[in-house]
Amino acid sequence: MNHELVDALISPEGRLEVLSKAEVAKLLDTRQGGLYQIFRKCALAVLNSGSSIDDGKELLERYKDFDINIIQRERGIKLDIRGAPGIAFVDGKMIKGIHEHLFSVLRDIVFVSFEVTDNPRFDLQRPEGITDAVFHILRNANVIQPQRNPNLVVCWGGHSINRVEYNYSKEVGYQLGLRELDICTGCGPGAMKGPMKGATIGHAKQRRDGGRYLGISEPGIIAAESPNPIVNDLVIMPDIEKRLEAFVRTGHGIVVFPGGAGTAEEILYILGILLHPDNAEQPFPLIFTGPASARAYFEQIDQFIGLTLGEAARARYKIIVDDPEAVAREMHTGIRQVREFRKSRSDAYYFNWGLKIDPEFQRPFRPTHENMRNLSLHKNQATHLLAANLRRAFSGVVAGNVKEDGIRAIEQHGKFEIHGEPEIMAPMDALLQSFVEQSRMKLPGKEYVPCYRVVR
Amino acid sequence: MNHELVDALISPEGRLEVLSKAEVAKLLDTRQGGLYQIFRKCALAVLNSGSSIDDGKELLERYKDFDINIIQRERGIKLDIRGAPGIAFVDGKMIKGIHEHLFSVLRDIVFVSFEVTDNPRFDLQRPEGITDAVFHILRNANVIQPQRNPNLVVCWGGHSINRVEYNYSKEVGYQLGLRELDICTGCGPGAMKGPMKGATIGHAKQRRDGGRYLGISEPGIIAAESPNPIVNDLVIMPDIEKRLEAFVRTGHGIVVFPGGAGTAEEILYILGILLHPDNAEQPFPLIFTGPASARAYFEQIDQFIGLTLGEAARARYKIIVDDPEAVAREMHTGIRQVREFRKSRSDAYYFNWGLKIDPEFQRPFRPTHENMRNLSLHKNQATHLLAANLRRAFSGVVAGNVKEDGIRAIEQHGKFEIHGEPEIMAPMDALLQSFVEQSRMKLPGKEYVPCYRVVR
Amino acid sequence: MNHELVDALISPEGRLEVLSKAEVAKLLDTRQGGLYQIFRKCALAVLNSGSSIDDGKELLERYKDFDINIIQRERGIKLDIRGAPGIAFVDGKMIKGIHEHLFSVLRDIVFVSFEVTDNPRFDLQRPEGITDAVFHILRNANVIQPQRNPNLVVCWGGHSINRVEYNYSKEVGYQLGLRELDICTGCGPGAMKGPMKGATIGHAKQRRDGGRYLGISEPGIIAAESPNPIVNDLVIMPDIEKRLEAFVRTGHGIVVFPGGAGTAEEILYILGILLHPDNAEQPFPLIFTGPASARAYFEQIDQFIGLTLGEAARARYKIIVDDPEAVAREMHTGIRQVREFRKSRSDAYYFNWGLKIDPEFQRPFRPTHENMRNLSLHKNQATHLLAANLRRAFSGVVAGNVKEDGIRAIEQHGKFEIHGEPEIMAPMDALLQSFVEQSRMKLPGKEYVPCYRVVR
Amino acid sequence: MNHELVDALISPEGRLEVLSKAEVAKLLDTRQGGLYQIFRKCALAVLNSGSSIDDGKELLERYKDFDINIIQRERGIKLDIRGAPGIAFVDGKMIKGIHEHLFSVLRDIVFVSFEVTDNPRFDLQRPEGITDAVFHILRNANVIQPQRNPNLVVCWGGHSINRVEYNYSKEVGYQLGLRELDICTGCGPGAMKGPMKGATIGHAKQRRDGGRYLGISEPGIIAAESPNPIVNDLVIMPDIEKRLEAFVRTGHGIVVFPGGAGTAEEILYILGILLHPDNAEQPFPLIFTGPASARAYFEQIDQFIGLTLGEAARARYKIIVDDPEAVAREMHTGIRQVREFRKSRSDAYYFNWGLKIDPEFQRPFRPTHENMRNLSLHKNQATHLLAANLRRAFSGVVAGNVKEDGIRAIEQHGKFEIHGEPEIMAPMDALLQSFVEQSRMKLPGKEYVPCYRVVR
Repeated sequence: MNHELVDALISPEGRLEVLSKAEVAKLLDTRQGGLYQIFRKCALAVLNSGSSIDDGKELLERYKDFDINIIQRERGIKLDIRGAPGIAFVDGKMIKGIHEHLFSVLRDIVFVSFEVTDNPRFDLQRPEGITDAVFHILRNANVIQPQRNPNLVVCWGGHSINRVEYNYSKEVGYQLGLRELDICTGCGPGAMKGPMKGATIGHAKQRRDGGRYLGISEPGIIAAESPNPIVNDLVIMPDIEKRLEAFVRTGHGIVVFPGGAGTAEEILYILGILLHPDNAEQPFPLIFTGPASARAYFEQIDQFIGLTLGEAARARYKIIVDDPEAVAREMHTGIRQVREFRKSRSDAYYFNWGLKIDPEFQRPFRPTHENMRNLSLHKNQATHLLAANLRRAFSGVVAGNVKEDGIRAIEQHGKFEIHGEPEIMAPMDALLQSFVEQSRMKLPGKEYVPCYRVVR
Repeated sequence: MNHELVDALISPEGRLEVLSKAEVAKLLDTRQGGLYQIFRKCALAVLNSGSSIDDGKELLERYKDFDINIIQRERGIKLDIRGAPGIAFVDGKMIKGIHEHLFSVLRDIVFVSFEVTDNPRFDLQRPEGITDAVFHILRNANVIQPQRNPNLVVCWGGHSINRVEYNYSKEVGYQLGLRELDICTGCGPGAMKGPMKGATIGHAKQRRDGGRYLGISEPGIIAAESPNPIVNDLVIMPDIEKRLEAFVRTGHGIVVFPGGAGTAEEILYILGILLHPDNAEQPFPLIFTGPASARAYFEQIDQFIGLTLGEAARARYKIIVDDPEAVAREMHTGIRQVREFRKSRSDAYYFNWGLKIDPEFQRPFRPTHENMRNLSLHKNQATHLLAANLRRAFSGVVAGNVKEDGIRAIEQHGKFEIHGEPEIMAPMDALLQSFVEQSRMKLPGKEYVPCYRVVR
Repeated sequence: MNHELVDALISPEGRLEVLSKAEVAKLLDTRQGGLYQIFRKCALAVLNSGSSIDDGKELLERYKDFDINIIQRERGIKLDIRGAPGIAFVDGKMIKGIHEHLFSVLRDIVFVSFEVTDNPRFDLQRPEGITDAVFHILRNANVIQPQRNPNLVVCWGGHSINRVEYNYSKEVGYQLGLRELDICTGCGPGAMKGPMKGATIGHAKQRRDGGRYLGISEPGIIAAESPNPIVNDLVIMPDIEKRLEAFVRTGHGIVVFPGGAGTAEEILYILGILLHPDNAEQPFPLIFTGPASARAYFEQIDQFIGLTLGEAARARYKIIVDDPEAVAREMHTGIRQVREFRKSRSDAYYFNWGLKIDPEFQRPFRPTHENMRNLSLHKNQATHLLAANLRRAFSGVVAGNVKEDGIRAIEQHGKFEIHGEPEIMAPMDALLQSFVEQSRMKLPGKEYVPCYRVVR
Repeated sequence: MNHELVDALISPEGRLEVLSKAEVAKLLDTRQGGLYQIFRKCALAVLNSGSSIDDGKELLERYKDFDINIIQRERGIKLDIRGAPGIAFVDGKMIKGIHEHLFSVLRDIVFVSFEVTDNPRFDLQRPEGITDAVFHILRNANVIQPQRNPNLVVCWGGHSINRVEYNYSKEVGYQLGLRELDICTGCGPGAMKGPMKGATIGHAKQRRDGGRYLGISEPGIIAAESPNPIVNDLVIMPDIEKRLEAFVRTGHGIVVFPGGAGTAEEILYILGILLHPDNAEQPFPLIFTGPASARAYFEQIDQFIGLTLGEAARARYKIIVDDPEAVAREMHTGIRQVREFRKSRSDAYYFNWGLKIDPEFQRPFRPTHENMRNLSLHKNQATHLLAANLRRAFSGVVAGNVKEDGIRAIEQHGKFEIHGEPEIMAPMDALLQSFVEQSRMKLPGKEYVPCYRVVR
């Protein structure tokens, strides 16, 4: 592994990266509520693309002298970078995809801070205000493209899957790409990279020049899931909940590959939304898929969902094992239905305003020891609310595994404790246990020490 | 003249015209501080392009049933237009340039209202806040383009010039276009249209596909100066002062053709800025030019400036009579100096942050009868402040001539009264008188009734 | 007038200008049948664009030291130019449009010489062979564009029309451009330039980036009709007959403005073709138009056609006086019919293979004194053949007026003598006489000395 | 495997596919010397992309009812296809890359037949004439692009390599792509596909939109090496010798992966050329590379070259084992030297006119039993001529293995007999034997029956 450090002076190429004097000043003002720290952390994550670190804390410690500055020039700003990971460079020149990502990070951090957080027009206490903020961040990132037909497939799944699963995700991406579908992922390695690589080849064969590889991240996870440079539209949402909302409002269907706690979190999130009574008529293709070797994995997930959320939840997805072409055909058909549904209602193709997202799914969840201990994990509530609470439980596990703050909290206070009804805690424990056994919690080569304890 | 009325449903083509639900709702909410009224008025002005009306009030009265609505569709919004002027259409299809202008109007009115006026980050009481707002409106309109070399020539001059002067302005535009310079004007007829037409031919011969024809207007004047459809970047600034600031911060040089009170206002504005001690080193090519028949006109202006602002002001411009090639060469050379100056200081090419604009030139001036009466027109003040006050005097005359509010005020309260020192009022009276004699106050064919009285 | 001489080294930009070693060698080999001389002459004509010389001989004499050479470089060939007319340059840099034209000339002269003249696959003795050659020259020049809908309007008319007629031709071009029609002309000044300028403005307003301004010339006429740089597709056909065939097979309709003998030649050419019985069903919009002042002119033409070719010929065109919008609407409608006709027969839009052109119209006519004397100008033949012979008579007059060879022949042997039946010779004499009186034979400012004598 | 048959009607998209009536007629005229048969065979090969057939004869037999016709439509020609392999389609729609290849085949077959074979300007008996023909075919295929810097890496190697070697070739392609180098191959599977796939990912990360994947084939081999659809510039040269000449004159360096007899043929071809005394100064990066498992393979090749052609030949290449980054860096450096060399001599970047190719390497070799028997395989000749003869020997083996004609000849007359000096025949026999043992002669899964016999 190349741990070389590189200094570089980088110019933007697009148009949005023209900052005003006030924007630059505020961003660089280290007294200003940590804005510079967030920028520095995300920039470092972007530059670390392709490395095998999946631990935000480790990353920051390894590159502790990394520094990034903004310089005004006659053609706009430049970034002055010191002590960057050598892996971002080829023969001393920064990879263009990474170069673009740096400026996407800058764009989103400036926009969120200047136009969203401090702008009274966004009432972030109300659901409409949150959705409006998500929309504006995406629009500013040029992700809202009204001329496109619905064709965006969100791919979820683990960042630490094995080689067979990874190759399978590439093959699915290839088949999606041949059908001129675009890919959106959380933009890290594993199941977030495979489908993009596959789709790149499929798009090349179909001469699809404007193929889109949309990556949606957030400052808390980006260090653990460095965007791969194929991503040609990178958006940094302010938090995990807005990131998830961005996925489900811009994507037209979802494929879930095998993964760990993060993938379970994502599954619970989308099921919780689709189970909301207001969304009963919304078509939304949702496919769980993997190679033959992952059959057991999806059976466990399916069983867990059946036991906790019931048959209505199971009716919302299909499981397809070891058949990439079938996945792509099914998704293609499902998206055509989405298109017809939206057209019939004059609903936008580019942003699903019509999807009801309960505030429970929008409110940021801070996985403190206390919050984790107090989760309501029982069946005496509406199914979609149970899904919301299960989602939070898994979210906490992800934080404890790979997020900087979570790791520090566990180091300080010990494992999270998760309580609940036995009918829920037993399957949950079994599921988490199987993730550990299948090495789905961390990149291979590291021993996994659980960050939680299921208290029955 | 075609007074036919047309109904049409219009779709946008670019990306920025994706409005959020909240934006559409606020825009259409007729109770909301007249936002819809401003939108309707500007839209009507845009649709009236090419007509000979130069009177905002007359325009609104003629098309009193004109209506414009926003409709949500799966690919974004559409505009539902009723009772539009037939002149915007060719065989029933809206001219594309006008089509684009409609959406530019929408974009700027939404942006100014949502992101500027109500956003606490812009402190519009402070000079930096105003400049910042100007920058953000231009950036949002995609006018800030850091990759371009300095090449934007602002052309000022009357909207009601005669045929010889108009042809001359075309020829100057042609020579500028052959040198790959772009054009920025106030986007109405006359001296605002001629240079763009000429540059279009010059650019065609030079195969300059990305030629820019930037028009900068504001809601108060647009009805009198409908943008010509050659304008391929239209920006609606919120008021005349921000419009003028936009001209001088984005343009790299200015050519002034003959005109009336509005042109005098513009000349006083730029001279007032260039005379500020902080701007002493700023290179800024400023050329007054016209055909042989306009020689006397510029002698009068030159004399007026000499008598009121003195020799330092006269040193800031060149007068070139009847030589379009010389104008273009001089401008080309001057802009090269601008480039070198900015490069040497790492100043942006795309926005002249370094130009000092005194708050006196930024503060909106409302030309009420009282404000007009109280102007300080005497030499006992810094020259650049005298220029600011003279600028306001001419601004009031323009309002009384062609702006809707001004016309109504004159109808109600009679002529404006302008006081001042005789050494200033005598030349001013002479200058205004000569404008009247040369029919520089209104489009030809209408008799001009002065809206002011110089009180010595 | 700028008679300055300029030296320059010019690089191509497109792809076709990659010559093989053999091509360069043959082109520069001065022993090779005058190929270099043709190249030099056409290049000089292109560089003389915008000047007021309309006399090939005068041009070659004024720039007798002009030289052009081909140099091999690592990125392909460059042209080394010595003693070029200064008018082709702006501040020492060659105008891009002219730059492109130079390489178009090179492309066509190389192609015709290498791939057509010496290639046995083209049997230039047979009609199909000639048509095939015309097609291949156009295809090689990238003029054949199958994706376009029919929209190409050929504009014919004099190069030496007066200012009122010129402005009128601009206005017609503007109205055609607003309807997204493209323009094809013989690419000189006057009626060949006006419609292109007008269409450029119309296209700019309609944001038509790919607007086409096709100029079709030939080595014999180009010196008299230097292409104007707006022309963005220039083709040099080998002779006048192939040039005319190119016009009628690629254009979808024709507008004829006032002109002199050349315009009469063009009118007789198209009428002769449309009168062929095989073309009876071919829709082909043909409009004669001019300002009010040209009404008499078209009445004379109309009368001449009535007297010589009869009513069937008169039924093939419309005369529209002083109404540019009506011309554009009529042409738009006519071209729609052309489209439907071709679609119904699966005929190509881009090349009218189905138009029958009699060999009499294809065979090059050399206007020697003997050939002129022997023309069959009597009614005892099929109408379309009489048209062919009348066409030749006018062709000879054009040669004697402005073509290098023709001028030399007249200098040497005196005026051409034209014989024929009185019923034809009387109207012909009257028509030619009226052209002289209306100064339609030469650019204004020169006295016209007739090069022919009508012998009754 | 999908053996489904599909019918389809296909339209072209580019410009060159506008055929004249004469071209279509000749192509479809089945009496005309087999032109239609060549077109049909190449079209079928293109449609069979991705299948596992590597035997031209088998392909033609399986799809014996395959038919392809040309239809004239108003927008140009369409291809009417019957009984095509289903593998070319995704959900019933032809893959765009394959669609383009069909029209490339049409373009080249028409051009070679009409403009080269029957055109007296190409004297195909003389070396300059052959080179000129190669240049014209490439220019017509739009492969000659003077604006590009030298960056085209030719990749040679077997179509039937194993998975480890294939993945290695992808990794090398990826590293080349990251350095913005483009790829040229013989356009079949295996080592011809891997580098293109890898470079596609590398280019995506570098945002290299215009990445080139040039495939050069010929009618005799295309059925065995169906172009993969990533190829975005496909050229069909008329025979193997012109194909090889096209590789070495357009490529700026060569990487050789493991392969069989065809790869040996290619190695002998390039070494034979580089050993010509006139080419002594030509820089030409030539790298043999493979994964660790291929080390023995290259040692055998290296030994064979040392024993037959000597040390001068060995000095012309580098062997790099198991280090894709080193290969890409070395190639990058080597190509920079090529660029400097060409620039210093004003030699074209896009076509290496300066490379001397002995007529022995240009003359088509027909691998009949007699020609194979009579090859001069002894050291009593110039080294580059020995290389030429060795090249022919391997060429014959390839024909006998996979080319339609060769297979039929072997079926009829038995194995080829190859004679020669023992010092040459012994290493040759050993080398061929090792290819058989390593399954380098055919796609895996088929038993290889040798088509030759080395007669010592």
